Amino acid sequence: MDLEKFKFGPYKIDPKEVFYHTDLSYAMVNLRPLLPGHILLSILREVKRFVDLTTDETSDLWITAKKVGSRLEYHHKASSLTFAIQDGPEAGQTVPHVHIHIIPRRSADFEKNDEIYDSIDLKEKELKQKLDLDKERKDRSLEEMAREADEYRNLFS
Amino acid sequence: MDLEKFKFGPYKIDPKEVFYHTDLSYAMVNLRPLLPGHILLSILREVKRFVDLTTDETSDLWITAKKVGSRLEYHHKASSLTFAIQDGPEAGQTVPHVHIHIIPRRSADFEKNDEIYDSIDLKEKELKQKLDLDKERKDRSLEEMAREADEYRNLFS
Repeated sequence: MDLEKFKFGPYKIDPKEVFYHTDLSYAMVNLRPLLPGHILLSILREVKRFVDLTTDETSDLWITAKKVGSRLEYHHKASSLTFAIQDGPEAGQTVPHVHIHIIPRRSADFEKNDEIYDSIDLKEKELKQKLDLDKERKDRSLEEMAREADEYRNLFS
Repeated sequence: MDLEKFKFGPYKIDPKEVFYHTDLSYAMVNLRPLLPGHILLSILREVKRFVDLTTDETSDLWITAKKVGSRLEYHHKASSLTFAIQDGPEAGQTVPHVHIHIIPRRSADFEKNDEIYDSIDLKEKELKQKLDLDKERKDRSLEEMAREADEYRNLFS
């Protein structure tokens, strides 16, 4: 894999954190997942808004989301999935690069099932802060993230 | 339009509430939108889970979401969009028929930008109750909904 290949807004993503990709999209583990299996699926090209995706990118992203979501739901013994795009800053987007949050869900995993969206917003801000502190982040968690990515990579082999 | 065409889970949707459709997807106004322009984009075929969509349906649904979202954002002078699928009951889905919530967003439209997701869940339950009381619902709001659908229909003509 090309180490330069995976960009997430202004940041480079270590390929060890990426567990699946197509020619147009890539799936990565999360710095601090809200629930087991909470991952991000991003378009490969740096595009800020969903409307700016090509037709091929739109199809690829969501066909990939369907596949990735389904396997993670099964893997985590969940029974539902949350899919969400925060498309623009007023929708809670903090990294300006189109990506889908995919979250396996189980009964009563959050006290109210939609509290998770508040958490997405908080965690996305935290993610951005952590990405700004790239060195500290790598020291703390790349190994753990790489292990999780390895685990998920096996789901697609 | 075929009056029998638009089903939403166990319910029939009045074509007056539908403002755009393709061969595979249809967009309808909401009984009680959370914010101006909050609409539902549903797959035409009655399918419960996102994974059960065909490749063509997946592409059509999201290419349509891109188009509908973009026009509603412009129409409502918004600057961002929320796209969300509650895919299964543990993710907050109450009507078992794949649909996307599309919500134009502006600065500070909710006190915390993601409180809207709690509201989606509450309103979806309310929607189901209202759909169960179909007669009352029609008496109360079909005209208003039809007017809104007319307004949106013009965006696509």
